[in-house]
Amino acid sequence: MFSRRLYQSLVNDRNEHPERFNATRERVEEIVYLVLGPDATSVVEQVRRIVGEPRAHIDERQGHAIAELLGDECSTHQLNRIADTLMDSEISTGEAIDVHERYKIPVSALEKDIIPVRGDGAWIIDTKGRAYLDMDSNYSATNLGMSNPEIARGLYNQATQLISMKEDRVHIPRTRFLKTIRGMTPEGLDCFYWQNSGGEAVDKAIKIAKAYTGEKGVVAMKGGFHGRTHGAVAVTENRAYREPFFLDDEDWVHFVEFNDLDAIEALFKQGAAKTVILELVQGEEAGIRPAERDFAKKLRKLCDEHGAVMIVDEIQSGFGRTAEKEGQWFASDVYGVVPDIITIGKSFGGGYPVTAVVTNREISDAMQPGYDGSTFGGNPMAMVAAMIATRQMRELNITANVIARCGQLRKGLEKLAKKHDALHEVRGLGLMIAIRLSSETLVGDVQAALRERRVKASLSTREWLRFLPLLVITESDVDYLLNALDGALMSVG
Amino acid sequence: MFSRRLYQSLVNDRNEHPERFNATRERVEEIVYLVLGPDATSVVEQVRRIVGEPRAHIDERQGHAIAELLGDECSTHQLNRIADTLMDSEISTGEAIDVHERYKIPVSALEKDIIPVRGDGAWIIDTKGRAYLDMDSNYSATNLGMSNPEIARGLYNQATQLISMKEDRVHIPRTRFLKTIRGMTPEGLDCFYWQNSGGEAVDKAIKIAKAYTGEKGVVAMKGGFHGRTHGAVAVTENRAYREPFFLDDEDWVHFVEFNDLDAIEALFKQGAAKTVILELVQGEEAGIRPAERDFAKKLRKLCDEHGAVMIVDEIQSGFGRTAEKEGQWFASDVYGVVPDIITIGKSFGGGYPVTAVVTNREISDAMQPGYDGSTFGGNPMAMVAAMIATRQMRELNITANVIARCGQLRKGLEKLAKKHDALHEVRGLGLMIAIRLSSETLVGDVQAALRERRVKASLSTREWLRFLPLLVITESDVDYLLNALDGALMSVG
Repeated sequence: MFSRRLYQSLVNDRNEHPERFNATRERVEEIVYLVLGPDATSVVEQVRRIVGEPRAHIDERQGHAIAELLGDECSTHQLNRIADTLMDSEISTGEAIDVHERYKIPVSALEKDIIPVRGDGAWIIDTKGRAYLDMDSNYSATNLGMSNPEIARGLYNQATQLISMKEDRVHIPRTRFLKTIRGMTPEGLDCFYWQNSGGEAVDKAIKIAKAYTGEKGVVAMKGGFHGRTHGAVAVTENRAYREPFFLDDEDWVHFVEFNDLDAIEALFKQGAAKTVILELVQGEEAGIRPAERDFAKKLRKLCDEHGAVMIVDEIQSGFGRTAEKEGQWFASDVYGVVPDIITIGKSFGGGYPVTAVVTNREISDAMQPGYDGSTFGGNPMAMVAAMIATRQMRELNITANVIARCGQLRKGLEKLAKKHDALHEVRGLGLMIAIRLSSETLVGDVQAALRERRVKASLSTREWLRFLPLLVITESDVDYLLNALDGALMSVG
Repeated sequence: MFSRRLYQSLVNDRNEHPERFNATRERVEEIVYLVLGPDATSVVEQVRRIVGEPRAHIDERQGHAIAELLGDECSTHQLNRIADTLMDSEISTGEAIDVHERYKIPVSALEKDIIPVRGDGAWIIDTKGRAYLDMDSNYSATNLGMSNPEIARGLYNQATQLISMKEDRVHIPRTRFLKTIRGMTPEGLDCFYWQNSGGEAVDKAIKIAKAYTGEKGVVAMKGGFHGRTHGAVAVTENRAYREPFFLDDEDWVHFVEFNDLDAIEALFKQGAAKTVILELVQGEEAGIRPAERDFAKKLRKLCDEHGAVMIVDEIQSGFGRTAEKEGQWFASDVYGVVPDIITIGKSFGGGYPVTAVVTNREISDAMQPGYDGSTFGGNPMAMVAAMIATRQMRELNITANVIARCGQLRKGLEKLAKKHDALHEVRGLGLMIAIRLSSETLVGDVQAALRERRVKASLSTREWLRFLPLLVITESDVDYLLNALDGALMSVG
């Protein structure tokens, strides 16, 4: 019997799904095997007879025939599962990988083990319908979840009205967000320059600091990571990120050891630099490495003495991830300092690409019309997403959840460290946590074993395995993670 | 009598409008004056008695009282106009300007003459309900209109599923778009690295060229504009954009006169550079200045002879704006060359922030995992918007419209040039058109006179007034523009 529901998942109504293709033959085959199991061979053969051409998108006639075929061969439960899975993706897993391998410039290692189609709280569902607890959160970009009906609705409203407007023109959604964001940033930091990516925000923060100080030199930390544009990668120590682009000998950048105040002071005294940039919790290159507790305040004092600009890159750490007390939105709050400039993102956009440079009035006033410009900075869609995401953070009391889950996770990890010899160390701040294993190879093995246990933990730095869960992670999610890690360590031991 | 419609426009249902505040008192006053005219004073006084506090957002009780008051005092027509205008914006024009002046870092001159809330074809509606024909198109970012129900629907669908996913992970929306975009780019340019902004794409294109050539030097054109990150602004000649940031003496950048092949050849021969970057139509710094007709082909040949990489920045010119024949999506197509790298954006996102570096297989292969990385590059939302926007371009046959409207506009402008002594020259390619007036002061006067005639034409370069209309501009829109310009030139003459 013809199944209308299945037909609609094979052949899209363009008004409802203007972004989709009709399903491919391969995707139908893949799902039929997933749902019916190995004895689906005869059904798959019939699907192939209906759609001869490989990789073709099914047309209306073929969709009709398949909806009749499967309507006869499957139970209602099976039909619904096939239709639901097709609604997640109409393209087969294999084709998605092939197309990426062929047409993406390979600037980074292609991650193809889990192909996500849908979020559900702190979990992610892949093309095969499997759920994974996500420990990446897209570097904090999706702290509030990857499926967000409120943000979806807000973006829909805005896209039907005014989908974009350049940075230099006054508009209403930006006014709304400027009215609400000010209460969240450290005191006195209430001047904003909106950008799109983390690297771009850092690049512009450096430009602003240079313009304000009238000096070129910048001190940056060994083990720091700030992004990939020319300006951002120049202050990122990893030589491998700079050398191929001739950015390894920039005369304006001076690297010092993290927490080394004396080295910074020496550079200030030499007149080599009047700006310093750092993460208070080094998030990528150094595993997860929080600054020493008194470093931030001493650095603040040092910068004041020398009239130097202190830039804290809060891209990963901001908006609650590192909270130790409720309402501590930034690592700067936790360390008890007010920097001169912070870079913020990505989480406040709730998944929409938006970041910002935030500074005080005095530094802001050093900028003049013509100094910079942006088409997409603070565009209406970004501001709508940010408006809703930051309201959700407050309404969910997300910093309270960070504190509770951090306590639970740290306690569990310390326990596992006692149980498993391979787990050497736990460190971090809030929900930026890393564990050090006995070797880099073991990290890969544990990641694979976690994947088998439905935990997606693809972030690592040498012998450090990094956990950057979504901030909406629940108590039972953390229990799940700890159990899975226990099992994974057991299996590789 | 209580008006429910008005009440709903004062007090928002959060499920329907999670992004909005309730209306402010000032906004209600502003709209009451707009709709009822000067004799609204007594009504406004009553509104003020209901909402005492200035700048307060109206609460439910106050909204009820205002909906009763206006229900009694206004005609149905007036009530509907008030409600409709409130649905465009709940914040007053004055407050929007104040908030921007106070909390935005002044990197560029704040444009506050027209505060847009809604798009309608090639027109834009402001907070006062006035319509303006838009000659900016957000630098080509909104070529297809600023209000786009199909894109809104697609983004809604995607945001309820998976709002973001980092660049290095395979996902389905990117697979869809990779399958369709390849047919639009110049032959052989089918490897993509997705970015968010124009500057970022140029910054990364330069990195890729450096990695491929193994050489640092880049030739750039006087009068070119490529963006604002360290890498992008370094190849932008305007010293005022580089000096405050100590980017005016980069040893790897060499500026030559536009169209000067000999100078480029000399630099290649000296071994000073192995990469050249240019716009085929200089869009900002030089007014609108197309390259000489044979320059592009000769440059292609020169690059081939020296094994040099030719980067064409198609951010403003791409996706049909410069077409002379149907289906010419890029200025490179019009000039009959295939560059080694093009940067594309912003229009293919239909307003969503997305750009890309596009290159051939050989150059792509020079990149290695770890060389770069991006959280938001080619995210699912960007790819959905791009999928729909590029389909709309093809279905609307947008290059045919560009050709027709360009012919109509050029003809009309040439006629006006004969009539008005102040209009000295018309130049451009496709719908990148500029007129040269007798002085820079006159450009400002004409812009103001156009604004009075409901044309928003805020782009200018010295004595050049630039027109970058939306590509959905109609025949009658162009007539409207020509009439308004005729009147504006008359009024300032």
